[in-house]
Amino acid sequence: MPLLEELAANRCCGGWHRRYRHHSTTLGCDMVFAVYLPPQAEDRAVPALYWLSGLTCSDENFMQKAGAMRVAAELGLALVAADTSPRGDDVPGDPQGCWDFGHAAGFYLNATQSPWRRHYRMHDYVVHELPQLVEASLPIDERRGISGHSMGGHGALVCALRNPGRYRSLSALAPICHPLASPWGEKAFRNYLGADRESWKQWDACELIAVAGERLPLLVDQGLADPFLATQLLPELLQQACAAAAHPLTLRLQPGYDHSYYFIASFIDDHLRHHAAALRS
Amino acid sequence: MPLLEELAANRCCGGWHRRYRHHSTTLGCDMVFAVYLPPQAEDRAVPALYWLSGLTCSDENFMQKAGAMRVAAELGLALVAADTSPRGDDVPGDPQGCWDFGHAAGFYLNATQSPWRRHYRMHDYVVHELPQLVEASLPIDERRGISGHSMGGHGALVCALRNPGRYRSLSALAPICHPLASPWGEKAFRNYLGADRESWKQWDACELIAVAGERLPLLVDQGLADPFLATQLLPELLQQACAAAAHPLTLRLQPGYDHSYYFIASFIDDHLRHHAAALRS
Repeated sequence: MPLLEELAANRCCGGWHRRYRHHSTTLGCDMVFAVYLPPQAEDRAVPALYWLSGLTCSDENFMQKAGAMRVAAELGLALVAADTSPRGDDVPGDPQGCWDFGHAAGFYLNATQSPWRRHYRMHDYVVHELPQLVEASLPIDERRGISGHSMGGHGALVCALRNPGRYRSLSALAPICHPLASPWGEKAFRNYLGADRESWKQWDACELIAVAGERLPLLVDQGLADPFLATQLLPELLQQACAAAAHPLTLRLQPGYDHSYYFIASFIDDHLRHHAAALRS
Repeated sequence: MPLLEELAANRCCGGWHRRYRHHSTTLGCDMVFAVYLPPQAEDRAVPALYWLSGLTCSDENFMQKAGAMRVAAELGLALVAADTSPRGDDVPGDPQGCWDFGHAAGFYLNATQSPWRRHYRMHDYVVHELPQLVEASLPIDERRGISGHSMGGHGALVCALRNPGRYRSLSALAPICHPLASPWGEKAFRNYLGADRESWKQWDACELIAVAGERLPLLVDQGLADPFLATQLLPELLQQACAAAAHPLTLRLQPGYDHSYYFIASFIDDHLRHHAAALRS
């Protein structure tokens, strides 16, 4: 059986959008992800921006709705869109069937509590298994950037901050900046990590910024008409944490923009250029 | 009750994506459409590109997946995305429940046969009622272009060719060029228009090109890996009809591209510029 089963291949902006299924040993289930390979990947290995999506999403939302391909093609950047949780009938979801926990809500951490700890190891999947797989199978090299939206913005921040040297560039759109103080984060962390709040800090961007082993310049866009801004996202706490730690942050507050992909599509090109500047050097 | 009920408003690329519901007297049912208003529309009325989508689509596919907003904002072009058929419980659909006829498959014509003729009058809706509505209610003026994809490409061609002087610009992506020779067109026309094939010709681009009252330069993109190319779309017949009538046609055959929105997103910017050149003068 091949390592990667190709589910779709669509020519786009001179390159290729491709979807693959594979068995993840980290997560103990089959997973789907998508890549965009720019035209430059026909000749040589290219750097990749890893994209982490938000609650309820799969690999498809970013590829279909962000409008990122044109500039990725111009810059010679591959895009790798992961799924948002382990999947399948064997993988337990939210007992109440809610959309903010379980399936499509893996929060990019390694769970320590039963029954979640068997499959919910999205941090290790995103940081280790997925890059290893695409770098071995596709014309993508080890120059890695990471970004994401909402829960995926939290994921991008935490993946980079926990793993100095693994990424060359970092950004986020409307990230959950301080899950310890967000209802979404509270629910997820209590379930995945247990009642000891001290253990949650190693999965919280604001806590990690204080002790980070490297200082990757951070670009964050946040819409000011985002309905989750004041309760779930809390960018002002990220700003405070960056200021206290002298971590370079460009926080752009965008009047009128909400939490949707219309917001992401409006600013993704700036993020691609931010990453390309670091990845192509 | 207001004429337009706003269902959504999302800031995007400096302008606004907005969805509206209204009662259509032409179609005898409630309809939803979407507009993108570029930043320039804050100060003055702007020209509009009317977009007609393909089978199974609604107003949402183009707005979410085409990545058209950035260049529309740059060019000061409004985008108006219509739905693909009359809708609602009162509107009869395909008796067999197929996706290629009835709901989301109105083919942009005026049906003459029962039970379709009561609601299926998408030509008059798209050409008359919808522009009248948006030009009266939104900062959009009477400079109109029209384009579309697949069934919507057929619709754009037929709407413009039947109504000289009504549009300043015309293009299509992977249009059904000659529905009289396409299984999709055969099924739809037989149901909507009856058995007399002679009456079908007034809804067929290749037939209309021969007798057109004006010669709007036509830009068409077609993917060569499109699975519907040889059976349903038949661009070579459009090319022959244009050559015979001396109708200006730029037909671009794109190697490797399929029928998806990844194809549309790859070439939509060229279409926007094609329209803007005529609309902004």
